[in-house]
Amino acid sequence: MTRRLSLLVNITGAGNHPGAWALPGRAPDAYVDPDHHLRVARTAERGALDGVFLADIPALHGDIGRGPGQALEPSMLLTYLAAATERIGVVFTGSTTFNEPYNLARRVLSIDHASRGRAGWNAVATFFPGAARNFGLGTVLDPDTRYRRAEEFIGLVHRLWDSWEDGALIADTDGARFADPGRIHAADHTGEFFDVAGPLNVPRSPQGRPVTVQAGASPPGVALAGRFAEAVYTPLLDREAARDYRARLAGQARRYGREVSGIRLLPGLTPVIGSTEAEARARFAALEAGVHQDAQQLARVARTLGLDPATTDPEAPLTEAQLSGPPPDRLPTGFFRTHAEIARREGLSLAGLAARTIGGHRSVVGTPERIADDITGWWSAGLVDGFTLLPDALPDGLDTFVDHVVPILRERGVFRHGYTGTTLRDHLGLPVPPSSYEPSGEKGATAR
Amino acid sequence: MTRRLSLLVNITGAGNHPGAWALPGRAPDAYVDPDHHLRVARTAERGALDGVFLADIPALHGDIGRGPGQALEPSMLLTYLAAATERIGVVFTGSTTFNEPYNLARRVLSIDHASRGRAGWNAVATFFPGAARNFGLGTVLDPDTRYRRAEEFIGLVHRLWDSWEDGALIADTDGARFADPGRIHAADHTGEFFDVAGPLNVPRSPQGRPVTVQAGASPPGVALAGRFAEAVYTPLLDREAARDYRARLAGQARRYGREVSGIRLLPGLTPVIGSTEAEARARFAALEAGVHQDAQQLARVARTLGLDPATTDPEAPLTEAQLSGPPPDRLPTGFFRTHAEIARREGLSLAGLAARTIGGHRSVVGTPERIADDITGWWSAGLVDGFTLLPDALPDGLDTFVDHVVPILRERGVFRHGYTGTTLRDHLGLPVPPSSYEPSGEKGATAR
Repeated sequence: MTRRLSLLVNITGAGNHPGAWALPGRAPDAYVDPDHHLRVARTAERGALDGVFLADIPALHGDIGRGPGQALEPSMLLTYLAAATERIGVVFTGSTTFNEPYNLARRVLSIDHASRGRAGWNAVATFFPGAARNFGLGTVLDPDTRYRRAEEFIGLVHRLWDSWEDGALIADTDGARFADPGRIHAADHTGEFFDVAGPLNVPRSPQGRPVTVQAGASPPGVALAGRFAEAVYTPLLDREAARDYRARLAGQARRYGREVSGIRLLPGLTPVIGSTEAEARARFAALEAGVHQDAQQLARVARTLGLDPATTDPEAPLTEAQLSGPPPDRLPTGFFRTHAEIARREGLSLAGLAARTIGGHRSVVGTPERIADDITGWWSAGLVDGFTLLPDALPDGLDTFVDHVVPILRERGVFRHGYTGTTLRDHLGLPVPPSSYEPSGEKGATAR
Repeated sequence: MTRRLSLLVNITGAGNHPGAWALPGRAPDAYVDPDHHLRVARTAERGALDGVFLADIPALHGDIGRGPGQALEPSMLLTYLAAATERIGVVFTGSTTFNEPYNLARRVLSIDHASRGRAGWNAVATFFPGAARNFGLGTVLDPDTRYRRAEEFIGLVHRLWDSWEDGALIADTDGARFADPGRIHAADHTGEFFDVAGPLNVPRSPQGRPVTVQAGASPPGVALAGRFAEAVYTPLLDREAARDYRARLAGQARRYGREVSGIRLLPGLTPVIGSTEAEARARFAALEAGVHQDAQQLARVARTLGLDPATTDPEAPLTEAQLSGPPPDRLPTGFFRTHAEIARREGLSLAGLAARTIGGHRSVVGTPERIADDITGWWSAGLVDGFTLLPDALPDGLDTFVDHVVPILRERGVFRHGYTGTTLRDHLGLPVPPSSYEPSGEKGATAR
């Protein structure tokens, strides 16, 4: 099988730049308008992208006074998008900290049936304090506990997804036998965090299992990805960071008898596109101009590093003292780590960092050719399998990408001209996993 | 406002009769096929019915060897249906025992936004032992505990739905102010079961709040309905039972300063329709013939009463000893109660009971005229506000109802010719509730 370039698009409401909502002519409620999201999903499908992706934080997070945040529950919104599209994959973020495995396993598998095999689940060990307080936790669980819970959760979900053997549904009208209970398996799981009998009441997925995605960049996040992930979404701000991340992921995968080649590495990328370099820079400036300075890139980057923007010289190279943490407690440590790394490596100032990242992810400002060069450069070097796009503003940021960047990628022979399969696994080039109940299958959760 | 007849349709997979899956020409996987459900929803919309309804049990419940059970997660399936319909309401069942209030509040409100104000939530205090074992509970919580939890849960959900005042979203691009945090309220809830800070990250519903439905018939279920429900779905097997239930509901509503006229009473009804009485009886016989005798009505009714079908004379009037319980532990007590009541009142045998109910709900076997007479009779007598239809087999059972019964109801002037509004509240004739943060509003959960 030839190696392929994969592209997801993370639909970040009004767009990934915090100023997107304030661009002229935007509907302020776009971020809670399902049809705004649908328009984006249909554009992505027109471009034959692999899938749409929805991040999530189950809380009113960030400064709602300055711009929109997470709102519509992503599994519902994704189902809405799946119902009105035909081929594109749909991946939603579901927390292993704030869900019950039985409910979550069932929701993902239900989307998979509803979408005829196009669903993926991005498993995250959410830690935001604001979220914890919505779930009876006065404080955030420590990382070890959250990741032990995530590990048990994902393994159990995989096992629940496998509850029904293929062919368990007999529908023998002569013998009045509907299903063969002997081929529907209880999980009988008893672990540190969960006691779940099962079986799941939903037959196995049209694509074997929904695709498992992982998004944590901290060491336990990478370990989790090495064990379970089939695709990874993470901020990687330069090639050195990508090389390093891929090596860490490969090491963790080997611990579980897996190959990193079976995991699609799809870091975030925010293209800011103009038909000339000057136009692209003007678009970036317009995005920055529309928001309060608290929401501008300089302030955001300072906060990511745990620095006070008011007292940090934006033009001076950041010092080791400034880059040594501790990480702020309201952002994933992966964001802190990646920003500090490239600032250190390249001797960047706050302003230098701000020009290189939007919303915590790598940004490229330029013409369609420049964006295409960047994508093909990283991909050809074997650093990544593709990208999770976070367009600067929506829907136009993705329109431009699909109309002007995708054709260049196709001309260069690195991206498909249309879908060749029907499932998200087909798009990503991932195999159908054997069931836990076949000898070759991953056992998922520990059986009692 | 004139009184109106309301009709929901509970989409019970292949149909409410356990033999529906085995009728000739059926796809056995219809119960997990979203497009089967969509076909039913579109038929209901063609008939201008108020809404589709999905029940739920989060477990592989019942005898899967004999027929299909609950499968696709109802909030996902409902979203799928909402995306592909325009006007019909969508109501799903969500357990207050096996969910987190923040997640559930957000899911329902997200469907409400996605459907532009057509969502309702059927709050149930699920107790099935099989479900409890999927959520870390070795045994079922006692009814008091489950209903105290349900009461706290629903009040808290209402308060979370009200987090955003109307107009909190400012979108002032000049001042770079997106929303007014002072008009977005934390729930700050601390109760016996839940500690939830809030606010919800989803703005208020297009219909004020999603419609709250309640389905329990036990005394604490009726109390819960009296306090919170705007519509009630329950088995009522004869007029006497309906009169009694309505009186109990009115009494409970008054305890909370509410009027029963503000609650739509919509008991279950399974029509088995033929163009002649003989044809209708033949359809019923075909349904019974297709299933193993364990799944036939006689066995089901016996189980509902906690009796052994093998040792109970099907033709002998049931005795007080047989009707005195205890209720079997795998069915809601409301089902036991309603069956025992009419058997006692009418001196019915098992066979007599079996002919009167399907799947625990009242059944009428006959011509479209007879079905229409039954519906208008109950409605005109003021016993009920309408019905939750559970067609015997799908999709044809609803096709026949919409094509042949609805026109009669329209001729008689008791049912609408088309939708007159856009939201589920419009269809049901329910007012938009004031927010908890307005002086007249229900306070929902107790503030700290």
